[in-house]
Amino acid sequence: MTLLDETIAAIRPVDPVAMAEARAHQDRLTKPRGALGVLEDVAVRLAGVAGVCPPPLPAPAALAIFAADHGVHAQGVTPWPQEVTAQMVANFAAGGAVANAFATQVGASVTVVDVGVAADLPAAPGLISRKVAYGTADLSQGPAMTPEQAVEALRAGIEVARGLIGRGDRCLITGDMGIANTTASAALICAFTGHDPAAATGRGTGVDDETHRHKIEIVRQALRINALAEAGAVQDGPEAALRVLAAVGGFEHAAIAGFVLGAAAARVPVILDGVIAGSAALAAAALAPDAVGYCVAGHRSAEPGHALALSHLGLRPLVDLELRLGEGTGGLLAHPLVSAAARVMHEVATFDAAGVADKES
Amino acid sequence: MTLLDETIAAIRPVDPVAMAEARAHQDRLTKPRGALGVLEDVAVRLAGVAGVCPPPLPAPAALAIFAADHGVHAQGVTPWPQEVTAQMVANFAAGGAVANAFATQVGASVTVVDVGVAADLPAAPGLISRKVAYGTADLSQGPAMTPEQAVEALRAGIEVARGLIGRGDRCLITGDMGIANTTASAALICAFTGHDPAAATGRGTGVDDETHRHKIEIVRQALRINALAEAGAVQDGPEAALRVLAAVGGFEHAAIAGFVLGAAAARVPVILDGVIAGSAALAAAALAPDAVGYCVAGHRSAEPGHALALSHLGLRPLVDLELRLGEGTGGLLAHPLVSAAARVMHEVATFDAAGVADKES
Repeated sequence: MTLLDETIAAIRPVDPVAMAEARAHQDRLTKPRGALGVLEDVAVRLAGVAGVCPPPLPAPAALAIFAADHGVHAQGVTPWPQEVTAQMVANFAAGGAVANAFATQVGASVTVVDVGVAADLPAAPGLISRKVAYGTADLSQGPAMTPEQAVEALRAGIEVARGLIGRGDRCLITGDMGIANTTASAALICAFTGHDPAAATGRGTGVDDETHRHKIEIVRQALRINALAEAGAVQDGPEAALRVLAAVGGFEHAAIAGFVLGAAAARVPVILDGVIAGSAALAAAALAPDAVGYCVAGHRSAEPGHALALSHLGLRPLVDLELRLGEGTGGLLAHPLVSAAARVMHEVATFDAAGVADKES
Repeated sequence: MTLLDETIAAIRPVDPVAMAEARAHQDRLTKPRGALGVLEDVAVRLAGVAGVCPPPLPAPAALAIFAADHGVHAQGVTPWPQEVTAQMVANFAAGGAVANAFATQVGASVTVVDVGVAADLPAAPGLISRKVAYGTADLSQGPAMTPEQAVEALRAGIEVARGLIGRGDRCLITGDMGIANTTASAALICAFTGHDPAAATGRGTGVDDETHRHKIEIVRQALRINALAEAGAVQDGPEAALRVLAAVGGFEHAAIAGFVLGAAAARVPVILDGVIAGSAALAAAALAPDAVGYCVAGHRSAEPGHALALSHLGLRPLVDLELRLGEGTGGLLAHPLVSAAARVMHEVATFDAAGVADKES
């Protein structure tokens, strides 16, 4: 049995008993019922993830930034040079990126994983090399990865999740870096949800109208050339999921899908960042539907495909501030909200214990 | 010159030079321009508040929960007994409320200020007594407060802000406790924005359809009996603002308005919580329009009037999770987002310094 098969087999549905207990406990706390809105759902989900009520605080938290390059960059889908992927990895290692600042803010560690940057990267503290190749092939000309490459990237993600959990981390946060990776995300979202490229393809980190139109056409071509364009072309099940991921995904998408599966198998919550994570989670969900229960949608990015992916997954984002940066920044910003939701279950008094009168019903 | 006059006179517009510097600095950081969305605006605002770029981190942070009772409770606008106000003050003092848990989460101190609870409260650590009266008069029968009472509550808020800033706090967060206080908030919002009670009056912490209809009629009656119902009945300027506040506000609304003014006069940012703070900020803005620049809208509550108030103030909320609890909980949840926005200005590398290529323009 491979690591991927073993991980998928280990993923159980979130625990309905712990979730029911959590819901009932919320109703005894000194606050009007339901007054914490979406955070009550988060607390209930965390209980289901851990299989215990109250759920443990989601700490320590670990951000993993999966970095890779994309053959489709050659099609001119972004104004950023491909070298920026490697340069930003160096920036993460030096602590100079926004993700580093936000990680400091919320007390999360930062691990950077090279799963396919198109350059040899110097060793650096916190940088793990799991390079599958020097970037994917161009998804608009054929499959971006071989099936073996997709599995290798998935395995990297699973092993990074296992490593972090093994050292004691109790909340994982997804991050990504890869110039041109919103193009691959849009293609994944179209393939997994059936939406049209015009609806799912956004402006990434900022493209003009003409480049945006071109990007949509590249996504359309990618779906067509990889035989994913027709309604019903994407079947259910792990094999079909792997085919889609290899055809139009990036190495970081595959690795993030593995990271989600690894977290779910270990019953640890994983906070998803933006559209890259959302599209990767679609792949994870297709490989193991029960994995979605272990995911918290950290934020909703400005990319239109992200909302489509979250809606397909049935996840409600916590932060909605028009971020379009990636790196895990939206996931990091959500972490204090997730912690707050869990903390309520431990620290807030019940009506009985506090001597507070309940509402007249 | 009274403390209120002196405070209003001390409020200057936020600093446009520091804001322009902050905007320019954002554009040099290693991220696509504008990629931090709303958080870039927050960072720029913080620079304007402090008059310096980069702006200081908003720490230490201090939550002040202003507690009071409301004569309109007698009209049956809520299913909660009035005693819950005093009971929740005891719960805050014992550390058992949601606000306490969230304050722990974000590292904020908690101060509770009795500005008008309808009971004698035992002394407790962190509890300040500034009681104006044992609850307001019934706003549906005439003015809720005398002008002198409104000024006394405003002064309490100013002095609490001054005290916290004097001991070193660099970010204030508004909180409230007062059974029936969403009724007063709705009336304030109608008076200051011109919206109809049906649009501005919500279900507070949870009322049924019949009570909701009744609550709307009570708000309508309050506006009518206090001669605030006609279009144009509310004039601009501090005197008119004070008249509205006294007519339909609560002691905690007046105190929070003073708290906002005190923060603005000292050039310290203040994070507004929910609909109580939003309606109080309308009063503060009417007393001193430049005070709005010092406010950050922490969240948008489930109360419909809150969105109307924020829109009138031109503030965009950071957290939007269907909270309807009050106490300062939404403001506390926003604090890490505000901190993260400021931290970016200090810790993130520029394109030049990090050797990262900028986008081809």
